[in-house]
Amino acid sequence: MNSPIRVSVTGAAGNIGYALLFRLAAGDCYGKDQPIILQLLEIPPGMKALEGVVMELMDSAFPLLHGIEISDDPNAAFKGANQAFLVGSRPRTKDMSRADLITANGPIFVGQGRALAAHAAADVRVLVVGNPCNTNALIAMSAGKEIPKDRWHAMTRLDENRAKAQIAAKVGALPGEVSNLGMLGTPSATMFPDLRHAKVQGKSVTDVCDRTWLETDFVKTVATRGKAIIEARGASSAASAASAAVDHMSALWNGTAAGDFTSMGVCSNGAYGIPENLIFSFPVTAKAGDWQIVAGLDRDDFANSRIANTVRELESERETVKDLLS
Amino acid sequence: MNSPIRVSVTGAAGNIGYALLFRLAAGDCYGKDQPIILQLLEIPPGMKALEGVVMELMDSAFPLLHGIEISDDPNAAFKGANQAFLVGSRPRTKDMSRADLITANGPIFVGQGRALAAHAAADVRVLVVGNPCNTNALIAMSAGKEIPKDRWHAMTRLDENRAKAQIAAKVGALPGEVSNLGMLGTPSATMFPDLRHAKVQGKSVTDVCDRTWLETDFVKTVATRGKAIIEARGASSAASAASAAVDHMSALWNGTAAGDFTSMGVCSNGAYGIPENLIFSFPVTAKAGDWQIVAGLDRDDFANSRIANTVRELESERETVKDLLS
Repeated sequence: MNSPIRVSVTGAAGNIGYALLFRLAAGDCYGKDQPIILQLLEIPPGMKALEGVVMELMDSAFPLLHGIEISDDPNAAFKGANQAFLVGSRPRTKDMSRADLITANGPIFVGQGRALAAHAAADVRVLVVGNPCNTNALIAMSAGKEIPKDRWHAMTRLDENRAKAQIAAKVGALPGEVSNLGMLGTPSATMFPDLRHAKVQGKSVTDVCDRTWLETDFVKTVATRGKAIIEARGASSAASAASAAVDHMSALWNGTAAGDFTSMGVCSNGAYGIPENLIFSFPVTAKAGDWQIVAGLDRDDFANSRIANTVRELESERETVKDLLS
Repeated sequence: MNSPIRVSVTGAAGNIGYALLFRLAAGDCYGKDQPIILQLLEIPPGMKALEGVVMELMDSAFPLLHGIEISDDPNAAFKGANQAFLVGSRPRTKDMSRADLITANGPIFVGQGRALAAHAAADVRVLVVGNPCNTNALIAMSAGKEIPKDRWHAMTRLDENRAKAQIAAKVGALPGEVSNLGMLGTPSATMFPDLRHAKVQGKSVTDVCDRTWLETDFVKTVATRGKAIIEARGASSAASAASAAVDHMSALWNGTAAGDFTSMGVCSNGAYGIPENLIFSFPVTAKAGDWQIVAGLDRDDFANSRIANTVRELESERETVKDLLS
């Protein structure tokens, strides 16, 4: 049995947090030999509910859960953190534009970025789940400069998983049989699934799937999936978002499978012409906490024009929050 | 990789169901080499929400989840089931007595018992989670007579886990370091935790813990835990109940650890003087789907009088539902 690692989770009493914590405590992310200490952050009005969540975590008697701490102060919640899931963010209300949302969330991520830089462990890895996750991660990275840039992640794995599920269902395969599917950019209508390099049961997705379906129903279903789930469940995606967060951090911790890659929002180093210092979702391989952008994937004109769209959206978001970047 | 097993879950769109399904699909119950096909049952008004849950299960791209079927007909949902979690039951409303609740739930479990007997796989194991779980299991067992009696289970593991968490917290141990803790009877105020044989870090719990604490605060905290969680979270225990269901069926599937035992509500064969054909929570060991009541645990007069209480409660419930038993 290894020594426990400290795993911080923000928005811990929210619906995604509630789904995530039990998966983490069960060993689904870091394996059955890796105990964890959970350090949970909530805003003051959420602390009472969080106490109830802590009771339920205790009442699950997880052998791997070696401690639970709670706080409404990020300086306490990130103390010694080896892994941090930034789940909490202000949800978008009816009268808010995307720019309003970004502006409302920005200061939260400035504070959390600073607190992480001041208090987290030297090996910390940070995953931003709360949307707009790329720009929230950019803000936190900028505020937490003392932490190397390659440690900051934005979650695009939910979109990757959704795309894999659609392709698998279409061809009668299992989602686990879809591989090498990179989601490029940011989780929004501009995100581009790079299907040219994706495989299902070892065959090229673009060979196996009808091109019209890929360009119409597939794209639409993946892009509007969140809304469809709200309509059916009467509540937004929670357990599937938590599962994607587990998948992202598990891939980073345990490594990606040989020959496969996954999608992670990470700081661009200029690869594929993506402007430096944008948090952009690339196809990556990972091993023992580090990652590399997969090199040499060719792009056609269609891909390039779609990628330019998602870059433009991210640049526009960066412009909106420029006063928060240092 | 083994062949997939069929796992039926009732009340699948409810809060416990929602927490349970993702744990099952992640491999937390049957292990990482055991694919599953989920067969989900809801009542007609729950089917739309269930469709949303199915979308989220798909969107998690679980490698072990080889299929998902949904129905509002138990005859379809239990078809070929190797494992069945009967989670759904009518919740108690303000104006209902316990007897009212039992009477309202009874017919559901008659129908499900019959459907299981008619359609489940020959090796089916059934766990009743919905309360009053012992009596609901008794009703289902009686209606599903063609299934051997040792296959019907009621869940008392949540109470065991809650008790372990309290003891661990009291002495500064981990819940996983508390063992040999049998919860006797039925999950209600009459349930008796057999602490005389329980151990923490290998030592006797009654030697390590203050007797007054064990007889007062400990008993009270465990007995009123559900209410405390509702007060804090504003919602009843869901993820911890799901976790206990995973623990129960995992112990049955994978076996209990050498020298340890766990609590399962099973059909009494008269052991320890418990009337035959009551579903009663005993300390059991398990292996490959079968279980045995732990023999030879001595009981003092205090234990015997407390056990008599919980027997009386179960006999009274059996009397209430006698018209449903065949």
